[in-house]
Amino acid sequence: MSKLSHIDETGAAHMVDVGDKAATHRIAIAEAFVEMKPETLKLIQAGDLPKGDVLGAARLAGIMAAKKTSDLIPLCHPLPITSVKVEIAPASDTRLRIEAYVKVTGQTGVEMEALTAASVAALTIYDMAKAADKAMRIEGIRLLRKEGGKSGTYEAE
Amino acid sequence: MSKLSHIDETGAAHMVDVGDKAATHRIAIAEAFVEMKPETLKLIQAGDLPKGDVLGAARLAGIMAAKKTSDLIPLCHPLPITSVKVEIAPASDTRLRIEAYVKVTGQTGVEMEALTAASVAALTIYDMAKAADKAMRIEGIRLLRKEGGKSGTYEAE
Amino acid sequence: MSKLSHIDETGAAHMVDVGDKAATHRIAIAEAFVEMKPETLKLIQAGDLPKGDVLGAARLAGIMAAKKTSDLIPLCHPLPITSVKVEIAPASDTRLRIEAYVKVTGQTGVEMEALTAASVAALTIYDMAKAADKAMRIEGIRLLRKEGGKSGTYEAE
Amino acid sequence: MSKLSHIDETGAAHMVDVGDKAATHRIAIAEAFVEMKPETLKLIQAGDLPKGDVLGAARLAGIMAAKKTSDLIPLCHPLPITSVKVEIAPASDTRLRIEAYVKVTGQTGVEMEALTAASVAALTIYDMAKAADKAMRIEGIRLLRKEGGKSGTYEAE
Amino acid sequence: MSKLSHIDETGAAHMVDVGDKAATHRIAIAEAFVEMKPETLKLIQAGDLPKGDVLGAARLAGIMAAKKTSDLIPLCHPLPITSVKVEIAPASDTRLRIEAYVKVTGQTGVEMEALTAASVAALTIYDMAKAADKAMRIEGIRLLRKEGGKSGTYEAE
Amino acid sequence: MSKLSHIDETGAAHMVDVGDKAATHRIAIAEAFVEMKPETLKLIQAGDLPKGDVLGAARLAGIMAAKKTSDLIPLCHPLPITSVKVEIAPASDTRLRIEAYVKVTGQTGVEMEALTAASVAALTIYDMAKAADKAMRIEGIRLLRKEGGKSGTYEAE
Repeated sequence: MSKLSHIDETGAAHMVDVGDKAATHRIAIAEAFVEMKPETLKLIQAGDLPKGDVLGAARLAGIMAAKKTSDLIPLCHPLPITSVKVEIAPASDTRLRIEAYVKVTGQTGVEMEALTAASVAALTIYDMAKAADKAMRIEGIRLLRKEGGKSGTYEAE
Repeated sequence: MSKLSHIDETGAAHMVDVGDKAATHRIAIAEAFVEMKPETLKLIQAGDLPKGDVLGAARLAGIMAAKKTSDLIPLCHPLPITSVKVEIAPASDTRLRIEAYVKVTGQTGVEMEALTAASVAALTIYDMAKAADKAMRIEGIRLLRKEGGKSGTYEAE
Repeated sequence: MSKLSHIDETGAAHMVDVGDKAATHRIAIAEAFVEMKPETLKLIQAGDLPKGDVLGAARLAGIMAAKKTSDLIPLCHPLPITSVKVEIAPASDTRLRIEAYVKVTGQTGVEMEALTAASVAALTIYDMAKAADKAMRIEGIRLLRKEGGKSGTYEAE
Repeated sequence: MSKLSHIDETGAAHMVDVGDKAATHRIAIAEAFVEMKPETLKLIQAGDLPKGDVLGAARLAGIMAAKKTSDLIPLCHPLPITSVKVEIAPASDTRLRIEAYVKVTGQTGVEMEALTAASVAALTIYDMAKAADKAMRIEGIRLLRKEGGKSGTYEAE
Repeated sequence: MSKLSHIDETGAAHMVDVGDKAATHRIAIAEAFVEMKPETLKLIQAGDLPKGDVLGAARLAGIMAAKKTSDLIPLCHPLPITSVKVEIAPASDTRLRIEAYVKVTGQTGVEMEALTAASVAALTIYDMAKAADKAMRIEGIRLLRKEGGKSGTYEAE
Repeated sequence: MSKLSHIDETGAAHMVDVGDKAATHRIAIAEAFVEMKPETLKLIQAGDLPKGDVLGAARLAGIMAAKKTSDLIPLCHPLPITSVKVEIAPASDTRLRIEAYVKVTGQTGVEMEALTAASVAALTIYDMAKAADKAMRIEGIRLLRKEGGKSGTYEAE
């Protein structure tokens, strides 16, 4: 089993040295779910009809958050990401599913960027619908897939 | 049922006017869980012994994220928060529980600050342990309690 | 004629002391225009139909930029703004008009927040339509109205 | 006519994938004007004599804003810009002209960086002179020239 | 002797609760020195003559950094500072002295804002003169004075 | 003697063009000291025992600050840094020594990133111990070593 790469031999946190890794094409895909009452989901979808603003705002917030990842997660490297997509669709009558896709040509992966995009999109949905439903929950934030880099492809079971 | 307060009558997103609300004491408490393999949790706890850096970094990242909430969530008001605490402890041999507490004297609540602190603390744990376990999941991000403001106290069931 | 308040007696820039001013209700309204080819405007409006994303993204970018004003404009005070609205509508078949409204209860005005919101909304429209029309221009960024504070109400002619 | 590249086939906003573009040398030059009363321009120029702070602050604010472009404009890629210059000079006795030049070796252009630098320099001039002249206007923000990338050189008419 | 207020009874870092403190007028003054070769100081002063840009840029960077203090220092509270001044003058033929003054009406002090402003002004001088003199040192960053709050006035010996 | 590279022929500040420099491996190491009463140092070390939070927080703040350097120092280039380490250890019974190491493959050096990391780690120590000792001083911030780039290796005397 690998050790915790962010902790050095003295136990101190540091930003891992990726300077000698090759710059390769890398992608990461993450997902998250927002659970809510059926009425809340209907309201979001209806509110979404005229100008698309709830889901549109959540998508945009997720994209912008991907760009802030290294500012939020202490030991993340700043990366010149080349593509971000955030998709949001109902997964049942009580849950929205968010999928975030991030791409980079770089020396380290973009798992955290994809997970951050999905998380902030979910938080934005909570924010915009919380007047209607404070009991919403964000569930199942996980990495679905990563490609590229020395450790190769990872696919969630 | 209340309508979506961030959407105006034309369907456009806006930052709700809280200028006429009273500035009252408000608190919010949120929680999140990180699910992982038992070995991963042991590794974090062991890694945490000498310098406390995994959980220490996650706590700090959560506190700092609470201060960035209005920068991340598009329609959140900037708020002069007066206290943030983030606590992280094992909830079983496969999960860490994060609890974030935020306080403000202001014209609107700090639910989003507490939820953002808990989420970013969870993402930081994922980042610092992902070399050992990419299949970790963040689950159950929700508002536990809010006090203050016109809508009064909310307590999760 | 008043002197330049941001320049002290030695000519050096500083952030004006507003600590002894009363905290009053203040609003500011600014406008901006984006000039483009008629085809570009049609494309934006058509592109806006299914999900509302061009104008929706510009509105959201303007709102978020209002919150970053003190980070962008060197001598602006950080202010806990209580409301931001950004409206965008066609003013002719070759121009979009942006109106930004910002409100605060504070010791100094929000003119810069409203002007920044209008400017960044305009830049976002340029960004999202530039593949179709690089010759777009942003014109007529100005303060329309301010209320509150010692200098009272200002209304553009 | 090209379609709006930031909107995908479903109408949703996304950050365009530039991962397969070649990293080439790219420059962009943008301009903006600030219109004001002749007395205001004299005051700025006089205030500028001892320490150079009005125009110096505006130049610096423009340079710093170029670095924040991807944080302000939702769908802009983060870019490691290699040079920014902002020049400000009187264009008549009632207007200052701002020219911003930005350079990068990257997979996408720096038009938005140049336009953002020019816009924020203009807003900073407004901020620093608004005590003297609230009726100033920012006019004529446009792209003057871009070089590099697949679409080649663009020059404004 | 007081205990470390940022560490709770379990040893974990947290943002101290200042919610029950009175909002009072508070100021803080900090200083810093930049040591350099006499030729470097002459160059800065000469370079400063035409447009004032070295010291002007350092002053501005210090002012802007004061506004970012709570983003830099993990456990600092965000504060609506009402005034910042940064003064820079030669203290001998080999050193520049920086004095930063910050004011707020708030529930906690602005010592860190003043120290951060002085530090970042010093770093900016280093950056702008390092092509001429890499051996410059920043020395003597300290709090000179604070007023306001329960602990009253502090004056350095 | 070299001229001030950030000032152009007209005296105006600009971000130096590094676009034609080769992207080489570069490192920079900086140090800083925090002077305090012996009791304060004991308190920090004791407070550091259970969870490591004072020095842990300072290390993390230094690492995060390295990533914000181009946002703080007006004319610094944004750089995709590949490694940051911050070490803090007692240098005597009244002083802590901070050493910051930063690495990049890029077109310009990371001296400012290392100096900024060391400075912000020092400021964080001040913040977390100031309730016990307001008279602490930050001393001796300097560049210890740089490698890479056209000017080659620099080593402090």
